[in-house]
Amino acid sequence: MTDCQADGEGARSPMELYEKLNAQGEKVRSLKTAKAEKAEIDAAVQLLLKLKVDYKQMTGNDYKAGCPPSENVVMSDNGLAADGADDEDTVDPWNVATSNAKGVDYDKLIVRFGSSKIDQELVDRIEKVSGQKPHRFLRRGIFFSHRDMHQVLDAYEKNKSFYLYTGRGPSSEAMHVGHLIPFIFTKWLQDVFDIPLVIQLTDDEKYLWKDLTLEECHRFAVENAKDIIACGFDVNKTFIFSDLDYMGSSPEFYRNVVKVQKHVTFNQVKGIFGFTDSDCIGKISFPAIQAAPSFSNSFPQIFGGKKDIQCLIPCAIDQDPYFRMTRDVAPRIGYPKPALLHSTFFPALQGAQTKMSASDANSSIFLTDTPKQIKNKVNKHAFSGGKDTVEEHRKYGGNADVDVSFMYLTFFLEDDEQLEKIKQDYTSGALLTGELKKILIETLQPMIAQHQERRKQVTDEMVQQFMTPRPLNFHF
Amino acid sequence: MTDCQADGEGARSPMELYEKLNAQGEKVRSLKTAKAEKAEIDAAVQLLLKLKVDYKQMTGNDYKAGCPPSENVVMSDNGLAADGADDEDTVDPWNVATSNAKGVDYDKLIVRFGSSKIDQELVDRIEKVSGQKPHRFLRRGIFFSHRDMHQVLDAYEKNKSFYLYTGRGPSSEAMHVGHLIPFIFTKWLQDVFDIPLVIQLTDDEKYLWKDLTLEECHRFAVENAKDIIACGFDVNKTFIFSDLDYMGSSPEFYRNVVKVQKHVTFNQVKGIFGFTDSDCIGKISFPAIQAAPSFSNSFPQIFGGKKDIQCLIPCAIDQDPYFRMTRDVAPRIGYPKPALLHSTFFPALQGAQTKMSASDANSSIFLTDTPKQIKNKVNKHAFSGGKDTVEEHRKYGGNADVDVSFMYLTFFLEDDEQLEKIKQDYTSGALLTGELKKILIETLQPMIAQHQERRKQVTDEMVQQFMTPRPLNFHF
Repeated sequence: MTDCQADGEGARSPMELYEKLNAQGEKVRSLKTAKAEKAEIDAAVQLLLKLKVDYKQMTGNDYKAGCPPSENVVMSDNGLAADGADDEDTVDPWNVATSNAKGVDYDKLIVRFGSSKIDQELVDRIEKVSGQKPHRFLRRGIFFSHRDMHQVLDAYEKNKSFYLYTGRGPSSEAMHVGHLIPFIFTKWLQDVFDIPLVIQLTDDEKYLWKDLTLEECHRFAVENAKDIIACGFDVNKTFIFSDLDYMGSSPEFYRNVVKVQKHVTFNQVKGIFGFTDSDCIGKISFPAIQAAPSFSNSFPQIFGGKKDIQCLIPCAIDQDPYFRMTRDVAPRIGYPKPALLHSTFFPALQGAQTKMSASDANSSIFLTDTPKQIKNKVNKHAFSGGKDTVEEHRKYGGNADVDVSFMYLTFFLEDDEQLEKIKQDYTSGALLTGELKKILIETLQPMIAQHQERRKQVTDEMVQQFMTPRPLNFHF
Repeated sequence: MTDCQADGEGARSPMELYEKLNAQGEKVRSLKTAKAEKAEIDAAVQLLLKLKVDYKQMTGNDYKAGCPPSENVVMSDNGLAADGADDEDTVDPWNVATSNAKGVDYDKLIVRFGSSKIDQELVDRIEKVSGQKPHRFLRRGIFFSHRDMHQVLDAYEKNKSFYLYTGRGPSSEAMHVGHLIPFIFTKWLQDVFDIPLVIQLTDDEKYLWKDLTLEECHRFAVENAKDIIACGFDVNKTFIFSDLDYMGSSPEFYRNVVKVQKHVTFNQVKGIFGFTDSDCIGKISFPAIQAAPSFSNSFPQIFGGKKDIQCLIPCAIDQDPYFRMTRDVAPRIGYPKPALLHSTFFPALQGAQTKMSASDANSSIFLTDTPKQIKNKVNKHAFSGGKDTVEEHRKYGGNADVDVSFMYLTFFLEDDEQLEKIKQDYTSGALLTGELKKILIETLQPMIAQHQERRKQVTDEMVQQFMTPRPLNFHF
């Protein structure tokens, strides 16, 4: 491989630029291996990043080592990580890891994934179009990134409706508060725009990835559906489905799965999801099943066979690889690309470095926790940004940016002014860690209790109703 | 790699034997490359073949270069070809090629695929158990290979029933007489054993492999179903299904597909089917869809959810890779292995070197051909084993082994004595090529006309009835 210092401006073709990028990536690696001067490494990384921006501008795609430019190449979400220029954050549907206590660097992720930031202008526009105060998740940057949301709003303003699609992988009966984020936000979107919603429970995915039986995965899907229904969805506007059930009850859904499967190669899913030759063929073809609900004719009972109803997908950013693939395939099979709204991750009690684990009871607040458990978990496990002693804390103040109790409040405390005051008081040292935790506990306890109360009222019949393919109260 | 002349007897473990085989394969290759003496190459190949038999005995699996022995390794059908010892015949679901005018060497194929020959003992036993004269396809070695057929008969003698599964890939509306072989034989099996039959039309496969739309493939499936029904199947005992329809109407079928997909890796399908990284993910996961009908609980409407009803698959030998994979997976997901009966290939009019092509109208007799077309095709295109002049033919006789007209008669002429006399007369020179062709024409014309007559009587309602998931006239 030739060494190459020239920048991207000189490259005349995507392939030339691609080769420059390969060379520069190689150079960064050698410098790191040789433990070169930090300044020299930084300069090389800067050039690499610049070449990448050029590459993206020229090809419309992210650069990825090993994938030369070609028509319709679907790119890896690990583009930067692949060549050693940025190995800090890992974000894919199965792994989220960062070494930063504030959590993943979401601005970098937007650049890496090629999505757009939800800026104040977009938040204002959502407010204007919906006629409603933006949800706190929008006001506070919890939903921080999007694809084509302006296009959705343009069409909506011209009376062209859309539908919502979100989902969950039912890997256990236990759901924690973090799992509710997309559903709380989706419910708000449905309420303010008055549109249909489909919710996919990927029990087949969980069977393929985990050491679980089909029966267990399906049972988790039904149990999780109860928690989702308890968020307050309207049965007349919402269809919840288990893949294991719906694939076997909708020829239209399977047809879209096969269409997607025909237009995505193993090379592509390898690049996007990191699959290897040792992965089972079920994993390899699964992404098509998560893609299919993005197309309205997967639900003829709702959309009467129309294939051009715009889909909007609110989800955590780690699901974006599925939908980058979907958006790449969509025009090739004659469907509109789904639009997306991406959320940040809900932090573990132990700190924002990792995504929570449903298998570690102490890593978050679960929807089944008692008031006492909530109190104990927050007091015992919630990572604190406070100082070691009261005296120090009073003197220097706490660090809200890494304090998990404060982070949780940004998700669940509705009052903006109260939240801002808490932040100021904590930062100044006026508010002690114990007091901050108390506020969180008193916010979570009634919220969880109310959820449990609503869930208790969800009967098997109601679940069955939500999960039966049927027309919704909309006409398309 | 070390050179190794010792035979397999000395090897104490599968891995040791595997390494000996690698070394010997390498040796055969070097000898060939070096253009060594034929005798030396032959000896090396003989030893290689012997080691393979030892390996198969020790591990139960075929040796394949690049796949070290391990539990449940699924082997390539190209085992021999992979190490250079036998590169004559290619047989997989998409390619059949041989340079021999007599056609594929089926005895070698049995060794390579690890199946068993249908010998006279088995034919006699089928006669005894069924109480019927064996079908001419059995008498004449057209169904020549099997897996576990004795086991099926053992169970049947103990009043444990089984079911039949066969299928077709509907790549066009046009079917030729060769396509009827598995159906003619399957109908005979169903009649003599009085058992349920499921027929899979892999319209999804054809969509994935060919440049066709989903709608076209599904239409071909329905059209092909009419020709299949015209073979005389009993609607009360037979379920015909299109994958595109049935996958979307049976959660149980999809569950079995996912089960298989979880237990087969890309490495395995790469080895078995030769898939590459550039293949679409639909192709890669498709083998699970052809596997699933081998398990009785894929059809709860027929078998009441029982998962242990033995399946017997009559099919052409090129489909065996799918079912080797299926048989490997079955015990790991708690199901019995399907048994198989393999047929030889139906030769193209132009000669037995290739399988016929539905896209070349002159390569075979199509089910839509008129009497005149049949006559012209046989006279013009059927490869003759006769001599160039009448005089030479009378003097030296013809070669029935490479004569396509004679081969076709072995498929379709019921009378064994008449067939034998034709062979003798042709071989002696008493029967001329024109006369032989005339016999074939007079055999095919009424057969095709009768098929066309029966097909005309197949209504859309009948097709619909055959293709509706429903109980059959059997109790399990």
